[in-house]
Amino acid sequence: MHGHQLAGPLLYAADLLGTFVFALSGATAGVKSRLDLFGLVAISFAAGNAGGITRDVLIGAVPPAAISDWSYLGVSLLAGFVVFFWSPNIEKHRSLVLLFDGGGLSLFAVAGTQKALIAGLSPVMAISMGVLTGIGGGILRDVLVNQTPTVLQEDIYAVAAAAAGVIVVIGYVLHYPTFAMIAGALLCFFLRVMAISRGWRLPRRKA
Amino acid sequence: MHGHQLAGPLLYAADLLGTFVFALSGATAGVKSRLDLFGLVAISFAAGNAGGITRDVLIGAVPPAAISDWSYLGVSLLAGFVVFFWSPNIEKHRSLVLLFDGGGLSLFAVAGTQKALIAGLSPVMAISMGVLTGIGGGILRDVLVNQTPTVLQEDIYAVAAAAAGVIVVIGYVLHYPTFAMIAGALLCFFLRVMAISRGWRLPRRKA
Amino acid sequence: MHGHQLAGPLLYAADLLGTFVFALSGATAGVKSRLDLFGLVAISFAAGNAGGITRDVLIGAVPPAAISDWSYLGVSLLAGFVVFFWSPNIEKHRSLVLLFDGGGLSLFAVAGTQKALIAGLSPVMAISMGVLTGIGGGILRDVLVNQTPTVLQEDIYAVAAAAAGVIVVIGYVLHYPTFAMIAGALLCFFLRVMAISRGWRLPRRKA
Repeated sequence: MHGHQLAGPLLYAADLLGTFVFALSGATAGVKSRLDLFGLVAISFAAGNAGGITRDVLIGAVPPAAISDWSYLGVSLLAGFVVFFWSPNIEKHRSLVLLFDGGGLSLFAVAGTQKALIAGLSPVMAISMGVLTGIGGGILRDVLVNQTPTVLQEDIYAVAAAAAGVIVVIGYVLHYPTFAMIAGALLCFFLRVMAISRGWRLPRRKA
Repeated sequence: MHGHQLAGPLLYAADLLGTFVFALSGATAGVKSRLDLFGLVAISFAAGNAGGITRDVLIGAVPPAAISDWSYLGVSLLAGFVVFFWSPNIEKHRSLVLLFDGGGLSLFAVAGTQKALIAGLSPVMAISMGVLTGIGGGILRDVLVNQTPTVLQEDIYAVAAAAAGVIVVIGYVLHYPTFAMIAGALLCFFLRVMAISRGWRLPRRKA
Repeated sequence: MHGHQLAGPLLYAADLLGTFVFALSGATAGVKSRLDLFGLVAISFAAGNAGGITRDVLIGAVPPAAISDWSYLGVSLLAGFVVFFWSPNIEKHRSLVLLFDGGGLSLFAVAGTQKALIAGLSPVMAISMGVLTGIGGGILRDVLVNQTPTVLQEDIYAVAAAAAGVIVVIGYVLHYPTFAMIAGALLCFFLRVMAISRGWRLPRRKA
């Protein structure tokens, strides 16, 4: 039931890379909130894995991959230590982190949608699970440091993940899953890059 | 295992109506916190479904009804769009929303208790699951917009849900489940209306 | 699958005592945040049981012990009422509460690790589940009253739980589980007492 069994070593590597990048974002938020070393590691794990863990619990795939396979904890620990020792440099490379974050979102969105489809969810809910996989970690990260989640307020983050999910569903129905996952991830990444560079945003309502 | 299978089309409709009303409360909170359109939809879904999803995960009914049946997402989306386009009117009809909210609580409390009893939980814990179903969405909604949950601070909200649960348990033991669910929902609704109109409150301790 | 079945009446009593102590901490935080009587009971239950419930959901042991056995709700209610009626005295006995809290952490860490090992998790993830059992309740308590979780910011709390988990894993491998659980709990408790009395802390990074 785990990502690496169902979609090969490439997707497994992508999943761990996505976890690492989101864990970096968690650790960076932790440093800003004056967490100690354990706090950094804990929020790194939360940011990197909460989305995937929640998805696995909801589709009944327990224990979740991030619990049964220690690699996810390993890359989260690594991210926590990297930020602890080199946090000034992380800040300097903010645009690099944003790019990695877009990559992590893309990978999580396609992997999450694909996994939910295999578990028998309907297309609409599978896409929702893909979005949850992509945004769950960032939401828990922000709640833990006492902020309204960025993803609920900022540009087309979740919409890019949903677009990737639509491509994955089409590929699943047409029996071209691998091709669709690659295309979906690229579309999501492209939408994120455009949203960041052009300032694309969703409308919001005056309170 | 889903509400509509276990208690007929009437309960299913009631469940969706409760989801819609709680989703409205989520979207309204989201507008106040300056969320974008996706944020509104996400917090609408969270407010309408977090209680039921948590209950289903805890009693082992995965995937939860709100995940396996896209209707719950559908009414949450609808609520998000309604608030997005007509939010000023929602504010004008605050007392109407409070009434609907009381109705949603009543429906969720009896449906949650009944479902937990069928899953084999003891009466005390089944009532607790009914309360959780009723208040879980509001708690997540408030945590997401960075506030201490209203339900933990305000009048006899949860107590009304527990009273409904007691009636459902009695009806379950006496083999009159349908009658007890209707009576429990009416009792909960009556208690909420009295709490709002008369200002009934639970005591609190000076800090 | 419940704690008391797998490790005898002694561990069951210890589990309930740990729940009671953490529930006290939840109720105390609730009084400070002006929660009403239901709010106190709810946050007491959350603080006493969120760690164990999350662990049980993640390892697939549903319904969790705290849901299927009403004793956990019972001691949480008791803690809520104790704080409601004697809250000034709780504040006076702050060092006593800290000692009990260290005891609760020790008991939860060893029980959580042991249960995860029996469920087939690897040593590293079993220790992580022990830590989660010990800190989960405190994290939810702090999130509910709108604060950054203390455990992510403060001294060697989680590290003490992890140390206990290491001892339990060694004892599990060597087939001396009971001895290892006692030794692990004592080590965790000793580390907490030293951290409190000597001001031991983990390093943190300047933001």
